[in-house]
Amino acid sequence: MEEDISKETLFRIKIDKDNEAFDGFLDEIRSAIQDTRENYLKSILEGAHPADIATVLHELDSDEALYLFRLLPFEEQAYTLIKMHDDMLSTFLEELSIDEISKTFEFLETDDTTYLLSYLTENKRNSVLSKLSKRDSFEIRSQLGFRESTAGRLMSKDFATAMLTDNVRKGIINVRKKAKEIEDIYQIYVTDEDEILKGFIPLKDLFLTPINTKISKITNFSVYSFHYDTDQEEVALNFKKYDLVSAAVVDDLGRIIGRITLDDVLEIVEEEASEDILRMAGVSEDERLATPIFQSVKRRIIWLNVNLLTAFLSSTVVAYFEDTISRIVVLATLMPIVAGLGGNAGTQSVTVVIRNIATGDLSFSNWWEAVHKEFVIGCINGVVLGSITGVMIYLVKGNMVLGLVVGSAMLVNMLVASLTGSLVPILLRAIHIDPAIASSIFVTAMTDVCGFFFFLGLATLLSNYLIT
Amino acid sequence: MEEDISKETLFRIKIDKDNEAFDGFLDEIRSAIQDTRENYLKSILEGAHPADIATVLHELDSDEALYLFRLLPFEEQAYTLIKMHDDMLSTFLEELSIDEISKTFEFLETDDTTYLLSYLTENKRNSVLSKLSKRDSFEIRSQLGFRESTAGRLMSKDFATAMLTDNVRKGIINVRKKAKEIEDIYQIYVTDEDEILKGFIPLKDLFLTPINTKISKITNFSVYSFHYDTDQEEVALNFKKYDLVSAAVVDDLGRIIGRITLDDVLEIVEEEASEDILRMAGVSEDERLATPIFQSVKRRIIWLNVNLLTAFLSSTVVAYFEDTISRIVVLATLMPIVAGLGGNAGTQSVTVVIRNIATGDLSFSNWWEAVHKEFVIGCINGVVLGSITGVMIYLVKGNMVLGLVVGSAMLVNMLVASLTGSLVPILLRAIHIDPAIASSIFVTAMTDVCGFFFFLGLATLLSNYLIT
Repeated sequence: MEEDISKETLFRIKIDKDNEAFDGFLDEIRSAIQDTRENYLKSILEGAHPADIATVLHELDSDEALYLFRLLPFEEQAYTLIKMHDDMLSTFLEELSIDEISKTFEFLETDDTTYLLSYLTENKRNSVLSKLSKRDSFEIRSQLGFRESTAGRLMSKDFATAMLTDNVRKGIINVRKKAKEIEDIYQIYVTDEDEILKGFIPLKDLFLTPINTKISKITNFSVYSFHYDTDQEEVALNFKKYDLVSAAVVDDLGRIIGRITLDDVLEIVEEEASEDILRMAGVSEDERLATPIFQSVKRRIIWLNVNLLTAFLSSTVVAYFEDTISRIVVLATLMPIVAGLGGNAGTQSVTVVIRNIATGDLSFSNWWEAVHKEFVIGCINGVVLGSITGVMIYLVKGNMVLGLVVGSAMLVNMLVASLTGSLVPILLRAIHIDPAIASSIFVTAMTDVCGFFFFLGLATLLSNYLIT
Repeated sequence: MEEDISKETLFRIKIDKDNEAFDGFLDEIRSAIQDTRENYLKSILEGAHPADIATVLHELDSDEALYLFRLLPFEEQAYTLIKMHDDMLSTFLEELSIDEISKTFEFLETDDTTYLLSYLTENKRNSVLSKLSKRDSFEIRSQLGFRESTAGRLMSKDFATAMLTDNVRKGIINVRKKAKEIEDIYQIYVTDEDEILKGFIPLKDLFLTPINTKISKITNFSVYSFHYDTDQEEVALNFKKYDLVSAAVVDDLGRIIGRITLDDVLEIVEEEASEDILRMAGVSEDERLATPIFQSVKRRIIWLNVNLLTAFLSSTVVAYFEDTISRIVVLATLMPIVAGLGGNAGTQSVTVVIRNIATGDLSFSNWWEAVHKEFVIGCINGVVLGSITGVMIYLVKGNMVLGLVVGSAMLVNMLVASLTGSLVPILLRAIHIDPAIASSIFVTAMTDVCGFFFFLGLATLLSNYLIT
């Protein structure tokens, strides 16, 4: 009887945080580190998945974690680094020597190496690169030569090919050669004699066809490829649109130079969605927990200063009505309600429209539907919330005109919110500005200014009825 | 010489919107529809990718689009429906007869069928289900029996298996049997005699091993599986953590009942990120462009009403200082600045923390780091923005004490913003409430109340110096 459950699975069960045994297991590791029981610790870690090792390291102090990490073979070290949260990764790459780092790099594909290099200081990066073999270092430098966030940066250089004129036997031999390096081969790419990409063959078709068949007979010529300079966002959209699992990357002449797989795209999709959320709040899209505070502050404070400017703008509107406020001071207590609710409603519209743009549901052909829908929602919101607020003010303050003023100002402001909230992101997109960055500033500035203006203006017009 | 470029690729080039020929191509299609030149249109569409057909349909009026759609074979119709934006999909499913819909369903896997069914009215859904074969209808109903957003709903039922006691030849035969139905086989699952999942074999290993080898010899026992009731968010996190390409789904006894592939997970990741953005703005996470307005309004208006309540709360704080405001009316023009900037800074903290929670970078072990970092950022923001604002007010209004009051109120409010902005989402998470839903309401309510209170309170204390 074979072993039924792997070491990897056993380790995973032990570190399940919902499991009561987890704390005990951690204490065991800690005390073994204390007593430097190297062999015992090595035996515990053997066979564990790098992601699970990283999970354990995150629970330890950084000294304990480093000690445990250094007990791992270099190959495991490499994969574990890839799986660390970025705050721990920064610490580790600071603490590890240039020698140690370059030894782990030998086991990684170029896209992972590039990722780790981005965490090193410039000096350390150059020292590490000079330690690597000429071939590795050349490959990494050439990949770093592609623009950031493009297909060239994203691709890995490991793939199997066959020529149109080969037969299936040759194709299988090529796969067999690559099979050890490449974990996830799903298809073999087909080229002509000049390495120009022509098509692909799914692995199962290759293996299920008689070996003397000509490659060109079973080639699927509908091959998906991206030029190396294609933006990663476009890569992701195409993967989603055409349900791709992998795609080729080609150079200017159409020769295959790499391939991108779905798991790379998964990261992009998550990154791009994060980008939208963070940009909407005026936070740098690169901000991670490990980002130095100074850098985190820089982008945020720029945004807050822009907000300060728009706040002064709306403050000027209020100042224009100082006279009215001094006579009817209750207006000062109510004006933030009108402006604030408008801002929130506007943010709702902005968010929905930006998400629809990002997922591709909203395009130039149907923008009008989105604006129309938001406007109708604005009307309903305005009537419902305007009435509720108006009636409440009337009941609390006993002045019907005051209730009417608040209610109608709110209605108008909701319409402003829905129109600007839907139109602004669509317009920004049309002129190629990322709507996530600038929309909400525009929209809340509008709802503040309009909210204050309508409310205080109307109050000024009807001030004779408001003084009780 | 074989054909070098496929019909699919040719069609894709024609509908590239950056291509000037696109408009001409569309006009051609439109006029062919006008003249009902069926055969010509069929020949144009032949071999085109369903996603590209959907792109063309989106450019046409709905009558033209329906006409063109009905020229497609049912299989193409099925895949094209899956690729439509949801507003067009709703229209189409309304217009198509029960007969037409059920014919397309025969070509779809259960997860896609379930997706389309969710767009049908209850009546139409039941009619369609009753038209399907007993087996199809049973499968769909049983899949609908799993809870929404779980592994069971997500899985497809197409996968290849072999038993531990089989040899490789049997495994290859099993793959061959399934190869036509399953487009993307990457691995074969290994079970014992009772269908209990034991491991898996990557396809390339299966094919590169001598056919008389026992399956158990080459089985990888570190197999990833999910219970059918596992939340899809957890499924996605595990796919990312362990770089999975596919995983098995098992029943209560551990028998394999389905498999989930990376492309399903891609959709979840995008969905979950959308959910966070939409929830933070108080919009229903199911809201699509095609959602009926009434449903869109419902969730949004609940959120706005909660906002109305907190706005009344902060309005009460202002009312408490009416006396001071009536004496120094300039306070009314400045108080929205203090509260507003606090709200924006708080939203930045909330956003960063929620994103870090979602990506798994922030866990219970390092929450303190995040709070600490946000607090330091709050200090810096407070000092910088407090100074800028204070000085500006002093320069504009010529009153140094007024500048000091605004500046210090802003400093304090920035600290409140950073602390509540980081602590609230972490606490909500700890008590298993989705931080994206409730955090920003709490935080902006806090910054409004505290902003008004500190600013007006300080102004009241120092009112003798403020009256000029």
